[in-house]
Amino acid sequence: MADQKSTNITWHHGKISKEDREKLTGQKGVTIWLTGLSGSGKSTIAVELEHALMDNKHQAYILDGDNVRHGLNKNLGFSPEDRTENIRRIGEVSKLFTEANLIAITAFISPYKNDRDDVRALLGEGEFIEVYVKCSLEECEKRDTKGLYKKARAGEIPEFTGISAPYEEPDKAEIVINTDELSVEESTRAILGYLEEKGYITL
Amino acid sequence: MADQKSTNITWHHGKISKEDREKLTGQKGVTIWLTGLSGSGKSTIAVELEHALMDNKHQAYILDGDNVRHGLNKNLGFSPEDRTENIRRIGEVSKLFTEANLIAITAFISPYKNDRDDVRALLGEGEFIEVYVKCSLEECEKRDTKGLYKKARAGEIPEFTGISAPYEEPDKAEIVINTDELSVEESTRAILGYLEEKGYITL
Repeated sequence: MADQKSTNITWHHGKISKEDREKLTGQKGVTIWLTGLSGSGKSTIAVELEHALMDNKHQAYILDGDNVRHGLNKNLGFSPEDRTENIRRIGEVSKLFTEANLIAITAFISPYKNDRDDVRALLGEGEFIEVYVKCSLEECEKRDTKGLYKKARAGEIPEFTGISAPYEEPDKAEIVINTDELSVEESTRAILGYLEEKGYITL
Repeated sequence: MADQKSTNITWHHGKISKEDREKLTGQKGVTIWLTGLSGSGKSTIAVELEHALMDNKHQAYILDGDNVRHGLNKNLGFSPEDRTENIRRIGEVSKLFTEANLIAITAFISPYKNDRDDVRALLGEGEFIEVYVKCSLEECEKRDTKGLYKKARAGEIPEFTGISAPYEEPDKAEIVINTDELSVEESTRAILGYLEEKGYITL
């Protein structure tokens, strides 16, 4: 057993309250749910936003394909059923991060309205901010950052959102960002401004 | 679009580094994996540990049956296969929390050695601390805090760990806590002492 060196410990039972966590971290836990077509700019905005938050001493964490599709959800495919379970699990993990008082930023196409609404219902009032990263299919296809649209048009990728699978636009997103027109910096500032205005963070 | 009020923003791309997160939070992310029989004291120690960490300005979050079994893993049962998937998902979520630089405390029986070793392998060197909350079956059954042993003995709960399903003891746990003998406070101090000694936290 390790030596006991600590003195600043008081023993009290029960769970930590939301208020205690907010006091310790100087922020309110929340899930920022970025949704939009492939190539609309979700991941780029997520990375920029995380950096801007950290620069201002706020703690954020990005959930995206890199760390979720290859980890927690590696046993899921791209059928409608699996897409729904994919989003359900991401929603549950976002909820845990939000309860832990972090700013969870998710960057997934999340094409189905019902799936996104289920996540909204899972989280508490004011804990879910839906951000529609809106970009025309034409522009996304022109960018084709990952070369996926070309493959989808060639029929090499089945059920590709926007081409051979639907994208259901949000109708009550807290924030809509038109990346046909706004730069990454402008997009990020829009989200930061909202977070500050609503009292989630202090800039 | 919300007004722009922020000034302290520099634009730079790329992911946040582990070092940046450690600097901001004054701690190292890690998963503290409590394993042991039902009634051994895992949850009680988890709650006490989380409080002691928060009192010392450290950020921890408990993953337990309450928030995982009824959320992320609500579509899993108690067959050996489902138990393995249960632990796999918890391991993946712990990894995300650890990457986010939190101290993740898990409180699950996690009876299979292989499952626990898989989680260990998932996490980086020094990011997984296995804590064997060791308590004799006799003592656990005597406590029977939730009345589960009585039901298991009556055959009302199939595959109950320690009675009708195996518990495989850890053979390389970083910390072993004998709760037949140690109080909750003593148990918590042992873990805190280890975390401080190894540089995860400052008390």
